[in-house]
Amino acid sequence: MAKITNLNELFVHTLKDIYYAEKQITKALPKMAKNATAPQLKKAFENHLAETEDQIAKLEQVFELIGEKARGVKCEAIDGIIEEGKGHMEDIEDDATLDAGLIASAQAVEHYEITRYGTLVSWAETLGLDQKVIKLLSGILAQEEATDQKLSSLGEAGLNKMAA
Amino acid sequence: MAKITNLNELFVHTLKDIYYAEKQITKALPKMAKNATAPQLKKAFENHLAETEDQIAKLEQVFELIGEKARGVKCEAIDGIIEEGKGHMEDIEDDATLDAGLIASAQAVEHYEITRYGTLVSWAETLGLDQKVIKLLSGILAQEEATDQKLSSLGEAGLNKMAA
Repeated sequence: MAKITNLNELFVHTLKDIYYAEKQITKALPKMAKNATAPQLKKAFENHLAETEDQIAKLEQVFELIGEKARGVKCEAIDGIIEEGKGHMEDIEDDATLDAGLIASAQAVEHYEITRYGTLVSWAETLGLDQKVIKLLSGILAQEEATDQKLSSLGEAGLNKMAA
Repeated sequence: MAKITNLNELFVHTLKDIYYAEKQITKALPKMAKNATAPQLKKAFENHLAETEDQIAKLEQVFELIGEKARGVKCEAIDGIIEEGKGHMEDIEDDATLDAGLIASAQAVEHYEITRYGTLVSWAETLGLDQKVIKLLSGILAQEEATDQKLSSLGEAGLNKMAA
């Protein structure tokens, strides 16, 4: 990446990192929905795809509010997390176990997003950015936390049990 | 990875994944401590290194309890997350901004661990594994959550502000 000399530049860099991540996630989710067996898990991935597209639009609003062009920068973390999820899809042969693996992979993605949006909100507050920026980023953070909770519930409600 | 046909095999695979991850983290933390400027952040990384070494010993106990040999499997997710953190160390030129970036990188690591241990505890319960296994994994999970909270507090208590 380009040299970074202050928190504002690090904020913009991290915004580009998560923008790239969200775009990669929109590519991964249809494959995860296709591979999921349980109808409720399939539906959860489809719903989350629509939500992710909406989050990308929200990030574009944030870029506009801070006067930066919306673009992504390669994020090795999300690439690694998605790659690991693909490994699950290739190597798990039992349907119920694959569902359990897909939930785990999706939760790893959610936790990456939760940590990044948490950091972005904290930095936006420190930098005294426009309240609209903070509201947009906090809104996405709350959605990611809700998705993570929903995935935990799906696992605990029986999908894991079917795989045991 | 080898073909996986049930939840027990996926549990063992994921245990090997996090064992590899913890070992990579013990290699990354001394560099993060060395690069940190604020004494309290340097100390937090040093303390977390000792804690991580203890967690590796706990994971070895888990392997023993389930009758498996303790060994790691390459985890692309943690490799990507650590690689991204290295990028921060190379490209951030201002000390206070680097501290803010190091906190963000360390929190990404913590969130990866939180999601994996959360999954392992849930699967261990579903599989009806030895209560000692569940206690060991839940104990590590609680430590990772506490470390994440501590890093948030360090950022909010002023390290981010110094970078702004």
